[in-house]
Amino acid sequence: MDLVTLGDIRAAAADIAPTVLRTPLLRAPWDDGLWLKPESLQPVGSFKLRGATHAVARLDPARRDRGVVTHSSGNHGQALAYAARAAGVPCTVVVPEGAPEVKIARMRAFGATVLLVPPAQRLAEAQRLVAESGAVLVPPFDDRRIIAGQGTVGTEIVDDLPDVDVVLVPVGGGGLASGVATALRALRPSTVVIGVEPELAADARESLAAGRVVPWGVELTYRTCADGLRTNLSELTLAHLRDRLDGIVTVTEEEIRAAAGRLIRDARLVVEPSGAVATAARLFRAAELPSGRTVAVVTGGNVDPAVLATLVTTP
Amino acid sequence: MDLVTLGDIRAAAADIAPTVLRTPLLRAPWDDGLWLKPESLQPVGSFKLRGATHAVARLDPARRDRGVVTHSSGNHGQALAYAARAAGVPCTVVVPEGAPEVKIARMRAFGATVLLVPPAQRLAEAQRLVAESGAVLVPPFDDRRIIAGQGTVGTEIVDDLPDVDVVLVPVGGGGLASGVATALRALRPSTVVIGVEPELAADARESLAAGRVVPWGVELTYRTCADGLRTNLSELTLAHLRDRLDGIVTVTEEEIRAAAGRLIRDARLVVEPSGAVATAARLFRAAELPSGRTVAVVTGGNVDPAVLATLVTTP
Repeated sequence: MDLVTLGDIRAAAADIAPTVLRTPLLRAPWDDGLWLKPESLQPVGSFKLRGATHAVARLDPARRDRGVVTHSSGNHGQALAYAARAAGVPCTVVVPEGAPEVKIARMRAFGATVLLVPPAQRLAEAQRLVAESGAVLVPPFDDRRIIAGQGTVGTEIVDDLPDVDVVLVPVGGGGLASGVATALRALRPSTVVIGVEPELAADARESLAAGRVVPWGVELTYRTCADGLRTNLSELTLAHLRDRLDGIVTVTEEEIRAAAGRLIRDARLVVEPSGAVATAARLFRAAELPSGRTVAVVTGGNVDPAVLATLVTTP
Repeated sequence: MDLVTLGDIRAAAADIAPTVLRTPLLRAPWDDGLWLKPESLQPVGSFKLRGATHAVARLDPARRDRGVVTHSSGNHGQALAYAARAAGVPCTVVVPEGAPEVKIARMRAFGATVLLVPPAQRLAEAQRLVAESGAVLVPPFDDRRIIAGQGTVGTEIVDDLPDVDVVLVPVGGGGLASGVATALRALRPSTVVIGVEPELAADARESLAAGRVVPWGVELTYRTCADGLRTNLSELTLAHLRDRLDGIVTVTEEEIRAAAGRLIRDARLVVEPSGAVATAARLFRAAELPSGRTVAVVTGGNVDPAVLATLVTTP
């Protein structure tokens, strides 16, 4: 399988520079060996803007005006809407009926057309749109352009902390982990890149152990509060992770919530639970990790205000 | 009176680079003409680290080992403790009995000696320490080194957004506003720099109108929730603001809380009420402000978790 290269990531970095925030590394005030990469500060509140912006930049110029389509109502949907608007390209997001109003409102505010359909028809409707209109489907992670875009998180980490020893990166569909591991393997092979996922959605650990994609059903993955990490790997992301990731650590729900509380109170970052799992690994699973200068990727900050209010006071 | 110059600020920028975060400008997701300067992301949670780090760097080398002293238990105390530790200099903070435990714990965690005294003896005790030990008193704002350090916020804004039209900066003791106005006046005289303060602690507006420091008593200034902005100007900061600030806008308590809620939910920044006043001016007092590309300085994020929990859900 044709894997993403450092060259692909370098090309993505040039594409995204005008639209995506170059996030700084923040020193964790409670841990002299920990730096945070706060992707929650992106204008759409997550790293997803990187891949989406790169995918939009690489549209066939002759087909740009037909636009882009996706069927993710989460952070990728918002990111694609924003990236498309920034590039002047039409965007349609197919959203399951019953999705939170605030997410729909945000996508509309970014100029996207939102199409509400019954949940089971999401993918079929997106494919119908593509066939009818000639628009390009931009999936959330199973795509080389998306992986290359997310990989810019990795090149920026090395630019800012050249002697980084350990990078901790959340794993959902695996696009971010694939890109970051690709960057680190190429630029600094001695750095250990560890994926982190909830114990209750540990499909990546199982898939890596089995050497094939082992899907976990929604009846399992929907138990975790880390709603951005319920997705299974694809063949493409598994191939990257098998080749380039050094290991997987899992964290409990209590650890995720405690890490979110710590990030909110002590690093002054608003984070969603999925965005706190890498920090949770450093806080609670240090015995399973190599020591040394460590970066935890804080992937996103799109959290319901009521959930945020409870995380603030979680000890 | 000898005012701070752009050269002083440039010198401070070189001093602070190893210790202070170079904060990015964030685009406000709800306003295409607004950028946020998130000083809440500093490792001590406020811009105060800039001035404190510069003051410590400029200690007489022969007297460094006698250390620094301050009598601010707020953000400046934490900042000086952190800056002193980074430079390997002893630090004592004189704190009034009854100060919040969390603040005392943070200063101790940064290696400072915390001296608890009755509130009325704070200043006298700090002066006694200085006389006895030969340590250097580092005040929170009434000091040219502090003003020069805070002015680096201004030079960074111009570096990142060279065609900025308006800069909104909170005014408490006036150190930050003095430094930022100095930088902008020198680098880009056409930019309008506006100070923002709570209506309930509008001593700077009154002082500027009167042409002399008009102190407001604690019975007035302690009405505002913006606890970082209850301080009065000094002769030194008033002189800078009279010469270089273009105006003052005031905001209400409701506007401050609403702006804080907006920053938390939509910009994913944990902010203290004082840190939200500049954004409040843009949100609610646009009619009193020039139009154009605007930067609001988000000065700090040190907020009690219980207060934060209520701000999260303030509409």
